Amino acid sequence: MNKGRVTIPTDLDVISQTKEVMKRWGADAVRDCDGTDFPEELRDIDAKVYSTYYTTRKENGWAKENPDEIQQMYLMTPFYTAEHSGLSIPLMKGLYPDMLKVNSKDNIKRFWEVIDRTTGAVISTDQWTYNEETGSVDIHATPFHDYTVSFLAFIMWDPVHMYNAVTNGWDNVEPQMTFDVRQPKTREFTMQRLRQFIEEHPYVNVIRFTTFFHQFTLIFDELAREKYVDWYGYSASVSPYIIEQFEQEVGYSFRAEYIIDQGYYNNNYRIPTKEFQDFQAFQRREVANLAKELVDITHEYGKEAMMFLGDHWIGTEPFMEEFSTIGVDAVVGSVGNGSTLRLISDIPGVNYTEGRFLPYFFPDTFYEGGDPVREAKVNWVTARRAILRKPIDRIGYGGYLKLALDFPDFMEYIESVCDEFRTLYDNVQGTTPYCVKTVAVLNCWGKMRAWGNHMVHHALYQKQNYSYAGIIEALSGAPFDVKFISFDDIKKDPSILKGIDVILNVGDGDTAYTGGDWWLDTDIITAVKKFVHEGGGFIGVGEPAAHQANGRYFQLSNLLGVEQERGFTLGYDKYNWEEQDHFITEDCGIDADGNKIIDFGEGKKNIFALEGTTILRQIDKEVQLAVNEFGRGRTVYISGLPYSFENSRLLYRAILWSDHSDHELHRWFSDNYNIEVHAYVKNGKYCVVNNTYEPQETTVYRGDGSSFSLKMEANEIKWYEI
Amino acid sequence: MNKGRVTIPTDLDVISQTKEVMKRWGADAVRDCDGTDFPEELRDIDAKVYSTYYTTRKENGWAKENPDEIQQMYLMTPFYTAEHSGLSIPLMKGLYPDMLKVNSKDNIKRFWEVIDRTTGAVISTDQWTYNEETGSVDIHATPFHDYTVSFLAFIMWDPVHMYNAVTNGWDNVEPQMTFDVRQPKTREFTMQRLRQFIEEHPYVNVIRFTTFFHQFTLIFDELAREKYVDWYGYSASVSPYIIEQFEQEVGYSFRAEYIIDQGYYNNNYRIPTKEFQDFQAFQRREVANLAKELVDITHEYGKEAMMFLGDHWIGTEPFMEEFSTIGVDAVVGSVGNGSTLRLISDIPGVNYTEGRFLPYFFPDTFYEGGDPVREAKVNWVTARRAILRKPIDRIGYGGYLKLALDFPDFMEYIESVCDEFRTLYDNVQGTTPYCVKTVAVLNCWGKMRAWGNHMVHHALYQKQNYSYAGIIEALSGAPFDVKFISFDDIKKDPSILKGIDVILNVGDGDTAYTGGDWWLDTDIITAVKKFVHEGGGFIGVGEPAAHQANGRYFQLSNLLGVEQERGFTLGYDKYNWEEQDHFITEDCGIDADGNKIIDFGEGKKNIFALEGTTILRQIDKEVQLAVNEFGRGRTVYISGLPYSFENSRLLYRAILWSDHSDHELHRWFSDNYNIEVHAYVKNGKYCVVNNTYEPQETTVYRGDGSSFSLKMEANEIKWYEI
Repeated sequence: MNKGRVTIPTDLDVISQTKEVMKRWGADAVRDCDGTDFPEELRDIDAKVYSTYYTTRKENGWAKENPDEIQQMYLMTPFYTAEHSGLSIPLMKGLYPDMLKVNSKDNIKRFWEVIDRTTGAVISTDQWTYNEETGSVDIHATPFHDYTVSFLAFIMWDPVHMYNAVTNGWDNVEPQMTFDVRQPKTREFTMQRLRQFIEEHPYVNVIRFTTFFHQFTLIFDELAREKYVDWYGYSASVSPYIIEQFEQEVGYSFRAEYIIDQGYYNNNYRIPTKEFQDFQAFQRREVANLAKELVDITHEYGKEAMMFLGDHWIGTEPFMEEFSTIGVDAVVGSVGNGSTLRLISDIPGVNYTEGRFLPYFFPDTFYEGGDPVREAKVNWVTARRAILRKPIDRIGYGGYLKLALDFPDFMEYIESVCDEFRTLYDNVQGTTPYCVKTVAVLNCWGKMRAWGNHMVHHALYQKQNYSYAGIIEALSGAPFDVKFISFDDIKKDPSILKGIDVILNVGDGDTAYTGGDWWLDTDIITAVKKFVHEGGGFIGVGEPAAHQANGRYFQLSNLLGVEQERGFTLGYDKYNWEEQDHFITEDCGIDADGNKIIDFGEGKKNIFALEGTTILRQIDKEVQLAVNEFGRGRTVYISGLPYSFENSRLLYRAILWSDHSDHELHRWFSDNYNIEVHAYVKNGKYCVVNNTYEPQETTVYRGDGSSFSLKMEANEIKWYEI
Repeated sequence: MNKGRVTIPTDLDVISQTKEVMKRWGADAVRDCDGTDFPEELRDIDAKVYSTYYTTRKENGWAKENPDEIQQMYLMTPFYTAEHSGLSIPLMKGLYPDMLKVNSKDNIKRFWEVIDRTTGAVISTDQWTYNEETGSVDIHATPFHDYTVSFLAFIMWDPVHMYNAVTNGWDNVEPQMTFDVRQPKTREFTMQRLRQFIEEHPYVNVIRFTTFFHQFTLIFDELAREKYVDWYGYSASVSPYIIEQFEQEVGYSFRAEYIIDQGYYNNNYRIPTKEFQDFQAFQRREVANLAKELVDITHEYGKEAMMFLGDHWIGTEPFMEEFSTIGVDAVVGSVGNGSTLRLISDIPGVNYTEGRFLPYFFPDTFYEGGDPVREAKVNWVTARRAILRKPIDRIGYGGYLKLALDFPDFMEYIESVCDEFRTLYDNVQGTTPYCVKTVAVLNCWGKMRAWGNHMVHHALYQKQNYSYAGIIEALSGAPFDVKFISFDDIKKDPSILKGIDVILNVGDGDTAYTGGDWWLDTDIITAVKKFVHEGGGFIGVGEPAAHQANGRYFQLSNLLGVEQERGFTLGYDKYNWEEQDHFITEDCGIDADGNKIIDFGEGKKNIFALEGTTILRQIDKEVQLAVNEFGRGRTVYISGLPYSFENSRLLYRAILWSDHSDHELHRWFSDNYNIEVHAYVKNGKYCVVNNTYEPQETTVYRGDGSSFSLKMEANEIKWYEI
């Protein structure tokens, strides 16, 4: 098949070229983008036509007529220290004035909170007033206590529209206001508006919802710079209307603090409170119900409903039960790496998924002297590992096609990518690739944050999380059945650990990714210890199971054989520092001093080994990699593991070793860690793939252990029959 | 004065040489040591004769006759994880068998504790038994819970005697048992024994108690290696007899856990519990009362009582009120650096103090090819800074004089040290040197741990504390009036902050050195904020005022202008990274990339600056040094500051700046930070001292700001009249 499974963008200025590119790349769908228009001339083209549809914006008339139904978000001011008994806190300081407008119309004494952050106490509402003129809250304060104000603000400029406008330098653009589809008038309006849109765009086959109702948290500062972002944030999914519904459902009073969370806004690193989890569950149900109405209308007109996994996606939570009730036909999302690919391709209950690949056809990449091919290669090769485990059904590109046309190398490279993808898809389709092991990533979020662990703004790098996100990225393209489970899951039913070979717990102590005081729950800790004792594997990365209590920081220190020196055990002499050779590190390089070369990223300081623990790597008397045994089970401690081919191999070996499967190494395996082997036994196919940009040589092992030598071109993928 | 203020060791084999060295070094006192004997021929020498006196050992006959009054210590086993419902914990595993003997004679169900360390619950005494034959405690356990046993053991080999025997390879030495002077029979015996000793040694002028009753915690493992050490530890100061007295005094039941503290043994990094503080207070009073009896007897015979600050010093706490009631004439202690010098020289209420300098005349330094001069120089020059601030009254050496005699260079160098010390002492004596500022180190311990902050085993290096101990070391020789205050002190009387110019809070978060949840006490935090607001300085090092609560980790983040990224604020964009030139860093070198060269030691990861904070140094987007203002006050954040001349200067500047005294820099000051100036205005003298081992040049500023150039020899000290 030389055609299909590819979507390209179009615009008024590239009509003939669109047709040409469609042919060349085998595209079977065309789309518009934010800031482009779909040309009339292409309406009857032999391809599916996608149209972006903005549920919450691009209708300022409605927004202006219904200012009470403009979307709102909860915000907390910074901490202000009272220097006297009077303290005045300006609400909008540090915020972009055109984006947000303080909501002082709804009962502020009910929906706002002034909190003494020195004591944690809520200030009585008679001790503060809001001054409309100054835009400040004036507080009767205790000198030298810190205060914050939590308040509601209307979102007067859709944050993504603002971002697009600022990034692309759109001058004189009218800020698009966001209206709240959840509220009664706008809800009714929205259903009519969608019908009208579909009726006015009969040539459109696919309504690409961008997206449903609630934007992830995104705030800009006075200089229009990003101030706060949380791709998973729920802070902008609130309004008095929604809050009142929530109160009725849960039967207890709402507090602003349930959303504000001391200014941490319940981000994914926070161990979730019951109230926030209640709120998320409420939103999932309400969003699903309402989104279904839009999807039903779409279907009524014989169109497909596609959801963009981004922007206003809050509340849809694709891995949770409610999602499939919405009935969307497809999900499309941006692919930044393997993890974000799986974030899309693993979504259950849709007919197909589509990945929007990088680079965008935007001037920041497609300028004279730019190298879009390099970016495209990195993006494709990085994502390909994950596609080979769980393919998306389509690939696509976005932006201004015109810009890409000026780069013939790029056009040619993408042509090859499209062909490669189609071959891959045909070979892989419908089967589960061979999985060596079943591994479970254990944290506070479980499946709700499947593949999204340690992500703040989609796949963007953070110094504090790449050493942990690397584990998820490695898993995204590795031959494992990967589950994401939560402490709640174990609490409800410890038998979910049956069938799992290896548990991973990855992140910093006292965060939701490792669990914090969940480890003091005897049901949890004994379930995990029992699991290991009976032969299971446990891999802890960073500060696994860490919460200071009962004489240790690592609550599983006896299993892991390591502990963190926090000053409290300096009196204990530590003699176990000698590194041992091990199955796990057999593929590691050796430096001039004879030390194993392993990139632990940020690693961890002050980790020491208990007696009897086997140290694989310590640097300057800080243990980075160690293994231990407990009962019939095995544990591995890793201080951090950024994504790389070497580290991916190290994790692969760690998983095998921790499940006593050292002997299974040479099955569907490549000696050279730059090359990976994926088998689709049911389809009688397997492939060998060079993940690097250079030629490579290796020995390839088949499932029966037989092997052959192989030379591969840069990036090459080779398919074989079993 | 070419004679006096110097003590030397002697032995049977160096009688004539002792006399010679006395003359050469101007020594006016001779002493014996553990493992040496005082020669009869020297009894009438024209010098004071010191004799070590071991209150708790060197009398195995008594110990054997009174096994019930052998000293005891509390020990906790490691954590054992139950794999079934039965768990057997061997008490002596990991302990040197000849040193400790389980005390199963006293009511074990009362004095021992078996604790479920998974839940923190004490196991009912009917759920465990001790098996004398196996030496194990057998527990009816919950599978996969962790357990420890806290138990009492007799100290069958005095730990210091054992250390000396092992280190010096003493063969066939009979382990000296330690008897407990606190108990009635031994108490009576001890008083008689001391009288007898004095009567039998009429030539002895000074009884050098080594020491009184309770050894700091020191435990050895099966291989006779040090297993646990805490120079401040109270675990070996217990017995059922003492515990019962304690219960009567405090009026509540004692628990082993009050001493065991989850296996952390209440070390100085632990935020002290009320019960442990009660126990320390009880011990201080009881030890003082009993020690006074020994001192009174010593005085009765017309002898001086000198206390060795080490070994069995627990309970004496020289900076606490009880100490001066003991009535000792002198304190002698080992000098490892400036901090340990001040640990001795600052002790109030004694007639004189003496520092025992390094190196010991032991074979580990004085071997063929060894370089004892180098060690002596480092020790002297390091300590000299502190001596110039607060001199000890005498210096002395220990070990085998015979060994030193083989090193003529060493003998000559020490001769010069003795002369230099006497000159210095004469010039300094009786006055307080000029202090530029009054600074207070604030932690949970206050004056009880004055100069001993971040020490585990006296001045021994630890990777985890040198970056903090460096601050104390810098202060030990700096022209400041240094106070050590506790949170309790502020709680009782916030006005103690009056008269203080700058507060320092130094260490890791949630430790006793920074205070942990003390910072949630509104009295404390508002007192400190008020202090700064009114113009005081605050210098935080490491994780100052750090305890996760109310939306931040650094509870003074608003004052310090910095916070630690713990994952919870990754969503906040951080734009403040630009380094600024500043008064504090003016003396720092610049590397090839134009960055300031500052050694922050272990530093801290993940520190970021709030808006408006002035960053002086950040490395790879982790703030290491920053300043901020609050009200009329100023704050400085430093990630860590190991001791060096450069860092000492940086701290000096930070203190001046934080107290708005930038303009006072050029008073009693040297441009070159390798050289320091100390003024004794009352005596009309000042000195300039080269702290390095190379010649140096500098400009010296007098108190009136006038200056002159100066070239100095290596290590030189020059005295001037004002």
